[in-house]
Amino acid sequence: MTPAQFYQGRRVMITGGLGFIGSNLAQRLVQLGADVLLVDSLIPDYGGNLFNIAGIESQVRVNVADVRQASTMNYLVRDREVIFNLAGQVSHIDSMQDPHTDLDINCRSQLTLLEACRHHNPGVKVVYASTRQIYGRPDVLPVTERHLVRPTDVNGINKAAGEYYHLVYNNVFGVRACALRLTNVYGPRQLLRHNRQGFIGWFIRLVLENREIEVFGDGSQVRDFVYVDDAVEAFLAAGASDAVNGEAFNVGGDEHIAHRDLVALLVELAGQGRYRFVEWPTEKKAIDIGSFYADSTLFRTRTGWAPAVPLREGFARTLDYYRAHMVHYVDPRSI
Amino acid sequence: MTPAQFYQGRRVMITGGLGFIGSNLAQRLVQLGADVLLVDSLIPDYGGNLFNIAGIESQVRVNVADVRQASTMNYLVRDREVIFNLAGQVSHIDSMQDPHTDLDINCRSQLTLLEACRHHNPGVKVVYASTRQIYGRPDVLPVTERHLVRPTDVNGINKAAGEYYHLVYNNVFGVRACALRLTNVYGPRQLLRHNRQGFIGWFIRLVLENREIEVFGDGSQVRDFVYVDDAVEAFLAAGASDAVNGEAFNVGGDEHIAHRDLVALLVELAGQGRYRFVEWPTEKKAIDIGSFYADSTLFRTRTGWAPAVPLREGFARTLDYYRAHMVHYVDPRSI
Repeated sequence: MTPAQFYQGRRVMITGGLGFIGSNLAQRLVQLGADVLLVDSLIPDYGGNLFNIAGIESQVRVNVADVRQASTMNYLVRDREVIFNLAGQVSHIDSMQDPHTDLDINCRSQLTLLEACRHHNPGVKVVYASTRQIYGRPDVLPVTERHLVRPTDVNGINKAAGEYYHLVYNNVFGVRACALRLTNVYGPRQLLRHNRQGFIGWFIRLVLENREIEVFGDGSQVRDFVYVDDAVEAFLAAGASDAVNGEAFNVGGDEHIAHRDLVALLVELAGQGRYRFVEWPTEKKAIDIGSFYADSTLFRTRTGWAPAVPLREGFARTLDYYRAHMVHYVDPRSI
Repeated sequence: MTPAQFYQGRRVMITGGLGFIGSNLAQRLVQLGADVLLVDSLIPDYGGNLFNIAGIESQVRVNVADVRQASTMNYLVRDREVIFNLAGQVSHIDSMQDPHTDLDINCRSQLTLLEACRHHNPGVKVVYASTRQIYGRPDVLPVTERHLVRPTDVNGINKAAGEYYHLVYNNVFGVRACALRLTNVYGPRQLLRHNRQGFIGWFIRLVLENREIEVFGDGSQVRDFVYVDDAVEAFLAAGASDAVNGEAFNVGGDEHIAHRDLVALLVELAGQGRYRFVEWPTEKKAIDIGSFYADSTLFRTRTGWAPAVPLREGFARTLDYYRAHMVHYVDPRSI
């Protein structure tokens, strides 16, 4: 069965459904004819944005709720067949300022969701959005799933715990679950309002506003990138397959690129903006992980998934999207 | 400087200080002339027992408090030089029934303690009691620190997160910290009231009450054991050394032994009791990890620590202790 066949009429829930990846997933699931429930807390600054579902508002159900709320989650999971579990606090910087809130959202709420499934819908399939951040600074490149988990910040620790919960609930309670360790996902519908959720969205905003990008150090650190449509296809493949249950998989891009080259590419594609190199800020340096790119062979082999959108094309599409819709992603009060 | 010289007059705090390892550590620190503050919640069934400090009551300060209480911890950490952080929920079974409580005690409270240190006593040294449970079912034996962390239950996940927090606070905030991944610690002052905190204490109780021990499966699973006095010396070595900061270390025993042989040894040493083999209970089998023994070379090399008490002698001493003091470890209402 193709993912397209699998999701036709399928009852799906997306936590963090108004956020970056969640809303792109929603757009695709509507195309595929799924019955889509979006759960999002719409906490200011976290990434949920109603504009992200422009065009599909009437084809999805939006339930504003916080995944920390057990009674709400107990109700919402009941009739769902697949849950894409993407809700999270994603700022590494915030997690070091307020570790307890990060714990509540990235650990407590994951247990709450999994307990809801265990007790009210044990037949559901859950796909969890994990992150390459859990590996910390890599010993060797590319990083496979055999690499030690050694997070460098509280957010990475709590995301690792969230991932482990899913695998344990799969293995012990039979709630089918897997985790995708995403590298750097980019594309339309990402938060641009502030720079605390990673650098890509922020760089794109600076370029489109013809401002100067500050590249930390010499910009030699390398990353791999996944265009959001490719990430969406990875979630769909994982949700439709029982060959991935109980495991965590790297989901990264084919191309890796140094920060300085990425910035140059953005400036070239946009035809505007500029950049300069600056010293690393102390608090960012302390949790930086150097170069990172993932080996996604395990997931590719298991599901047949492969990234399809080249870096240059992905960033061109991204710039086009924000050129057309920037007003919906910029809140002048938050700069 | 020897540990004995290091701890003379040293202001020390032990969380979980009325529990099994904490109270043995307190007994030793009093011998060494330290200024000892014991913090314990005395939550029923968790292991805290005032009889554990019999003989040193007047030489330690006991503060009944819950490590989840931020304001209390902010106050208590202020003048301490070394914190042995042993408070925890240790039942794997309980963690699968009530994962949120395990999260609060093993994750939230660790963040609370570390935040207290970061903001009120950043010069302190913290030694965290971690566990071999975080490795889950091992791929190879003996298990080194290079083995993947892959917990099989919620308790193991939360203990892993607690450990990572300590290492991150060391690396990012300069709160010196390390973690000891203890294997199976046994000896005087362990909880015997119920069987939800591991099998050793329970087996000892059954033998001393001349009852029958049920060995799951064929009893062929192998473990290594650490006599509590050796575990105490490991904590002292870690607390006195800055060569261990920011790392996690296996702390295991030299001898490994199959469950069936351990049970036979206990029956032989006690001269009473008996055992029989039974089927694995489903909920225990689901989180069992098979055979496990650790390679502690890294910690031994780094600190010079080595276990000194052979298995046979350790269990003989343990049986002697409980023969003399069983009444203080058995609550007839809790069976």
